[in-house]
Formats: sequence, C-alpha cells, structure tokens
Amino acid sequence: MSKLAIYPGTFDPITNGHIDVLERACKIFDHVVVTLAINSSKQPLFTVEARKEMIREATTHLTNVSVDTIDGLLIRYASDKGAISIVRGLRQVSDFEYEFQMALMNRKIEPEISTVFLMPSDKYTFLNSTIIRELARLGANVSEFVPPSVLKRLQDNFSRS
Amino acid sequence: MSKLAIYPGTFDPITNGHIDVLERACKIFDHVVVTLAINSSKQPLFTVEARKEMIREATTHLTNVSVDTIDGLLIRYASDKGAISIVRGLRQVSDFEYEFQMALMNRKIEPEISTVFLMPSDKYTFLNSTIIRELARLGANVSEFVPPSVLKRLQDNFSRS
Amino acid sequence: MSKLAIYPGTFDPITNGHIDVLERACKIFDHVVVTLAINSSKQPLFTVEARKEMIREATTHLTNVSVDTIDGLLIRYASDKGAISIVRGLRQVSDFEYEFQMALMNRKIEPEISTVFLMPSDKYTFLNSTIIRELARLGANVSEFVPPSVLKRLQDNFSRS
Amino acid sequence: MSKLAIYPGTFDPITNGHIDVLERACKIFDHVVVTLAINSSKQPLFTVEARKEMIREATTHLTNVSVDTIDGLLIRYASDKGAISIVRGLRQVSDFEYEFQMALMNRKIEPEISTVFLMPSDKYTFLNSTIIRELARLGANVSEFVPPSVLKRLQDNFSRS
Amino acid sequence: MSKLAIYPGTFDPITNGHIDVLERACKIFDHVVVTLAINSSKQPLFTVEARKEMIREATTHLTNVSVDTIDGLLIRYASDKGAISIVRGLRQVSDFEYEFQMALMNRKIEPEISTVFLMPSDKYTFLNSTIIRELARLGANVSEFVPPSVLKRLQDNFSRS
Amino acid sequence: MSKLAIYPGTFDPITNGHIDVLERACKIFDHVVVTLAINSSKQPLFTVEARKEMIREATTHLTNVSVDTIDGLLIRYASDKGAISIVRGLRQVSDFEYEFQMALMNRKIEPEISTVFLMPSDKYTFLNSTIIRELARLGANVSEFVPPSVLKRLQDNFSRS
Repeated sequence: MSKLAIYPGTFDPITNGHIDVLERACKIFDHVVVTLAINSSKQPLFTVEARKEMIREATTHLTNVSVDTIDGLLIRYASDKGAISIVRGLRQVSDFEYEFQMALMNRKIEPEISTVFLMPSDKYTFLNSTIIRELARLGANVSEFVPPSVLKRLQDNFSRS
Repeated sequence: MSKLAIYPGTFDPITNGHIDVLERACKIFDHVVVTLAINSSKQPLFTVEARKEMIREATTHLTNVSVDTIDGLLIRYASDKGAISIVRGLRQVSDFEYEFQMALMNRKIEPEISTVFLMPSDKYTFLNSTIIRELARLGANVSEFVPPSVLKRLQDNFSRS
Repeated sequence: MSKLAIYPGTFDPITNGHIDVLERACKIFDHVVVTLAINSSKQPLFTVEARKEMIREATTHLTNVSVDTIDGLLIRYASDKGAISIVRGLRQVSDFEYEFQMALMNRKIEPEISTVFLMPSDKYTFLNSTIIRELARLGANVSEFVPPSVLKRLQDNFSRS
Repeated sequence: MSKLAIYPGTFDPITNGHIDVLERACKIFDHVVVTLAINSSKQPLFTVEARKEMIREATTHLTNVSVDTIDGLLIRYASDKGAISIVRGLRQVSDFEYEFQMALMNRKIEPEISTVFLMPSDKYTFLNSTIIRELARLGANVSEFVPPSVLKRLQDNFSRS
Repeated sequence: MSKLAIYPGTFDPITNGHIDVLERACKIFDHVVVTLAINSSKQPLFTVEARKEMIREATTHLTNVSVDTIDGLLIRYASDKGAISIVRGLRQVSDFEYEFQMALMNRKIEPEISTVFLMPSDKYTFLNSTIIRELARLGANVSEFVPPSVLKRLQDNFSRS
Repeated sequence: MSKLAIYPGTFDPITNGHIDVLERACKIFDHVVVTLAINSSKQPLFTVEARKEMIREATTHLTNVSVDTIDGLLIRYASDKGAISIVRGLRQVSDFEYEFQMALMNRKIEPEISTVFLMPSDKYTFLNSTIIRELARLGANVSEFVPPSVLKRLQDNFSRS
C-alpha cells in the first residue's frame, strides 16, 4: 500500500527551508502532496496560481511530489485522499505550540493520521516567508533563501511598485 | 527498498506515551528498532535487560518492531543499519531545544538521515519516566500511564524497598 | 467577609476549557463574576448579548456565578466590586508572558488584588475559542469542546453563511 | 467550611519571593500550611529543622499560616488534611512545564484539589533559593532578597566555612 | 575611530524601559542614533514627528544620542553610517525569537555589524508600548512607566477622544 | 578612557561558537578579559591550565584579549578591574532565563556594569561544550565545531581512555 503524506502551507512564497523539509518528506513517504488553502483569511502577496507555479518550478527534481489546493478542512482532505501523515516543518519554539494545537485537533478528528514534524537545516532555522517578503520589499538580496524562480518573481513584484 | 527507523531512548521504564509514539512510527515506517544506550551516564532504576523485556512485553501487538542496544554513537548505528530516520516523541517546549540540538548534530554527521518528531496523545503530554518513577516510589497508582507488565515491576521494585 | 473573584475574558464563545476553570474558581471563592469587555478592539463572532446568554446557559449548575460587562479598566472594576482576585486560565507557555505582563501591571495599579492562575484539564490544554470558531466554520464536529447551547449557535451561525 | 491550602516547597532557605506568594495565598484561603518534604533526594544547605524555624520567624505577621513536614505523596497529604488547593509560585517560563506536569498528575490522582498559581512581585521574578545560596557563598550581599533571620543564618553558615 | 551604534524601534511612545536600554548603550558606544522607521505597516498612535520630539525631550541628559528616521533597510542604513552595532532591548522569552531572526538576517547581509542585546531593569521587564497605550486609553495612571512629556501627550491624546 | 569587558565561562573546552562571540566583543570593546571560574562545582573534563592554554591558542589572531581566572564573585571581579560590561553569548531560548537571572542579580549588585548579549552565527546555534565532549567521547568528528588545538586535545583525551 502506497504511503501518502500531505504537506500543507501558505507558501507565499516557497522558500529553501520549505524545499529542505519537502526533500526529506519525499524520502520517508511514497508520495507527498503540497497543498495550498484557497480561502485563507490572510492577504497573500502572490496569487494561488503563482504560488502553485513557483512550487512546481522549485520541485522538478522531486519525482513523487504533486501540488493541490484545498478549500475545506485540511484533515478531511487528508482522510479523503487516504493520506497517513501530515508533514510540518518545525524551526523554533514559537512554532511549537500552534503546531501542537493543530496536530492534536487533527488527531481528535482523524486518529489514524499522524502529524510528522521535520526540522530544516540550521541555515533555515530563522527563515520564514514573512521575513523574505519584507526583505525583498526593502530591496535586500534574498537569493540565498529562495529558489531562482521565486527570486525573479519577488524582484518583478517589488520593482513594479 | 524497506524503510527502517530507529527509536532511541532510555525507557526507564517504557510508558504509554512511548508506546503511543511507537505505534504511530510503525504505520509510517516498514520497520522500527527501539534502541537503548548501554553506556549512558544516567543511573537507571531498571537494568538494560529488564528494560528490554518490558519493551518487548508492551509491543507484542506491533509486528514490525524489534529491540536492540547500542554502545556508541546513535547516528552511526542508524547509518550502519541503513535507517532513513530517527524517531523522537516531542511533548513540550522544554523537550524542543535539546531535541533540535541533537537532530542538527546528527544531521551534520549523516545528512541523509532525518529526525522525525511525533506527538503523543494529549493524555500523555505531561508524562515522562522520571515522574512515573517518583510517583511509584511514593506509592501512587500509575496504572493509567504504564503498560501492565511495567506496573507490576514498579510495584515489585518499590515494595521491596 | 465574602471572597469575590473576577473571571474576565472574551468568551467568543465559552468553551469547556473555560467552564473547567470556572468550576475550580467557584470552589475557591465565595462568588465569581464572569466579565466581558464591551469595547474591545477585537471583532467578535457573537454579540455581547449572545455571549452572555451562552455563559449563563453553560453555568446553570454553578450557584455562585454571575455575568457582567465592563467598559473600562478591568482592575478598577475589580476594585470597585471589592474583589480579592482576578482568575485566569493558563494552558500553555505562549499564554504565559502576556498573562504575566497583565498581572504585574494590575498588581502595580491595585497591589491588594491578586491574579490567580488555574490550569484546565489536559483535555483542554490545546483548546481555544479561535480554533473552535475556525473548526466550526470549516464544518468540523466540535461537540467535544463546547457546551450544547454553544454548539447549536455555532451550527446556526455557519449554516446560515 | 474552612478553606485550607497547602504551600509545598524546599525553602532552602525561604526567600522574600516565597513570602510574597504566601502573603497573597493567606488572603485567598482561610488557612495555609507551608510544607517541607523530608525525604527529598536533593542535598539541602539547611536542615529541615533550621528551614522550619526560618519559615516561622519570617511569617510571624501572618496569623493563618502553619508549617509541617511530609514524607510521602504531597497530593495524598493535601487530601488527608481536607485541603482544597495546592499553592505554587510561578515566576518564569522555565518554571511552567514542570509545574504543569505536577499539577496535572496531582489532578489525575485527586480531581477535587486544584493547583493555584500565584505570581510574586517583579522584584522577585529572577530570584530563587539556588541563586541566593550561590551569592551568599561568594560573599555577596543578599539582604534585599531574604528575611533578616535567613540573612543571619546564611552569613553564619558561610563565614564558618 | 568612533564607535557608533543604531538603536532602532517604533517608540510609539518611548518608555522608561527604552530609556534604560539607551542609557546603557550610551556607556558602551561613543554615539547612539535612535531610529524610527517611517514606512512601517503598523498604524501608530503618534506621528513620526511627535515620536521624535518625545525621544529628544526624554534624552536631554544624554550627550551622545541623536534621532533619525529611515525608510529603507535598517542594516543598510547602519552600514552607510559606519555603525558597528545595532542595539536591541531584550525583556522576555517572547522577544527572543523574532529578535534572533532579525539579527541573523542582518548578520547575513552585513557580517561586520553585530546586534547587541541589552536587558532593561526588572522594573521594566513586563513593560511595552502596546500595554502603555492600552492602559492610557482606559484612563490608568502610567506615570511610573513613561517620561513626563510622554505622559502629558498620552493624557492629551486620550482626553480628546 | 579604555572600555573593558569581561567574557566569563567554563570553556570546557572553548568552541568555535565562543570564538565567534569573542571576535564580535573585540570590535565593540577596547579590551576583553576571558575569565574562568576556578572553584566551580562542575567537574570539568580539562584542567584550568589546559583550558586557559586552549583559549590562548585559539585567540592569537585577536590583539585585545587576555585570559584570567577568578575564585570569587564575577561581578566584583569586573568592578575591581574597572570593566563596563559582562559579555555573554545567547543562542537559544533555554539560555535565556538563567542568563537574565544572573544579569539582573549582577545589575542589582553593580548597577553601573551592563550585561551585553551577543549572538553567535546560526552555524553555532545548537552547539555547546557538553555536546562536543559527548560527541568526542563517542568518536564523532567535531572538527567543524572546535579550533584545531582543542580537536587535538579531545582526541588525545578520549583515545587514552
């Protein structure tokens, strides 16, 4: 039986930290679906389509990844797909409690699906999409933290404004 | 290719929280080796043999688990066995930093092996072996927190003293 | 002299975690006033009236509780009522610093009034009103986490939309 | 019915932070018993008798306090005495998890007894007995942090050595 | 060579905690520039001009301080000015991770500039501008926490509304 | 007036993380004294003499560093030397509270001396002497984390045993 995992997030945009987590998930599971929530209350910088495209461009080296969108409860989507795990990156203490809250709630709703936490490289411990957007907006060079296609879109986005 | 994980610990004694983590690991990986370090500096309550026996008794319902001892570097053992992951339970913020320190060190030594963090049920969030030993020593009923064979050994141990 | 405590919050809506804390406060104090701030900057899901009604319906088994609204400084309200304590639930590390900040500020303003922290059951450690609203919005079953009358109102609210 | 609370600790020695917590507990409860565990594994600086005497000397202004020793399970002692609460000071994030672990364990054993957390003044946020002993050993002036009789005993103790 | 440091912040308004940190920075560095970001996304209570004026009024006793505004990347401003350090106050665990994230990002962009963390007095551990604004809005006396000219402006602001 | 700082620690042994912090301190202060406490209760792996020698060997590229031992109160030593600051590395949340406790105590004893916290590179965030000793004991390669002379002594030490 094929072992499927879901890697949910906002990915606004995908960073090298996300890719590091995803590469590790791809070794553990037979297939990983990266999912974007389309009705999130957050106002994203990039459209769902642009974010999906950036994820696809950044993961061409991974053969067992696909990308999808969800507009309902994540854990129900995971259950419908027959997933055995939800994958989350865990970088810092401040991630910890929100992640545990969600993981425990998901466990109560679907006890058979585990949340699996993976740790990105220490190079990415202090990295997140918010800080990338802020640095790019102020004109800093973020090429060390995002894949090339994301870098280009960030530059396009902020040179226009 | 069979996917092997190592679940290292002191297990002095194994608790229901450990078993909860192990059951989840057994769904993700093809085989899980529970390992005990034999040259740890900690002074355990139970001998290595007794701890191994309690783990075996508590995991007879799991068909893809084995138990082993290690007396060197955990990550080297994992590498020699061809493991793809090290499994750790993560219950509280205070676990977090030590676990990350070890996970990053292990990652530097063997970049191909991931540390996978799993979360026990909220019933076991505040449970650990130290508190179990202390409660058993003072005569409290810990049957809710440990498997039956561990309960019996704790009672034997502390009634003797 | 009767010992009065204030249990302030947003209660949008009241959860089983809040009720657990309130039941414990009712054993310690002679009377507990649950208070809602009416000029908070947060945009609530339920009106003040609906929230008061849900609190009353969920606390009919407690004889020494009343509900009130405040539109000024909490600590001044507590002082005017002759309260000796402010009661707060403390579930997680992330609650800790904000709660201490408020408790120390209140202590500086009214040194005679103590803030008393109570801990809900581990079943409710990872529960809060925000996550309840989000889960209800997405159609998840939250009957395990809120009293029946709150469940009904959540269902009414989100089926309408 | 008189409302009794237990305030357990090592009190090696009692500090102004402990007294601050105790004064607040004495306003909430009808009587507070300060308890010392006599079979703790820690090697104390002061004997149980000296610690009891220092507590008594430092609490003569409080009419509803007594001092006792326990040599078994704290929660069972509390239950036998008919206490409704256990009082603990909570100063810092690092206190938090151990305290919650104990509070949840105690709650499982005796669900009717609550753990009540009180916060000392910000002057005492970073104060504990370990640091007091260390500073006194090195000859620092700790008169701001301990009651006079404790100060005298610390000086006697370390001048002798 | 003169040693210059930058002390960036929102200072909405400056508090006694900020001044405490600034006084300490002024002993370590030859000159300290307090900087306000003018294009921040936060909606401030006071205008940039009012905030600059309050900082100047509160620092007349310090001879090596100046005030400036920046509308780009902080670390680039620091580099252009020839600063050797960025100064930040660190009060609580919750400050820690955001501060480290920023410090590490800044270090990657300009490895020669260090972030220096200073700790305000314990009197100001639980103090921040948000809580000051909230207390002032509700009519509490905040004279213990802000310099006199800030107190006057807070009173003017909230009596008008 | 020359600005002197003290950088205290156990340095058992000095790591690349310590050296990173020291290099940064040397740019801020005119002179930095690295100090070892000689009467610490910890049982060190290396003698005071060996630790001093390793510090000297690892800091030959820094012209404003000296090494000393202290056998009393650190803050008094700093005061006697005319230091204006104590330097500490801050890597993780778990360092935070102990460091703040010490910094506040030192501030109460000598208000004129500041504690300055510096952050090592993210490469060293999860590094400390304890983990280095443990890895070296188990035969892992720690050349990435310690200077060459320390590496040699660790190898000598553990090959002998």
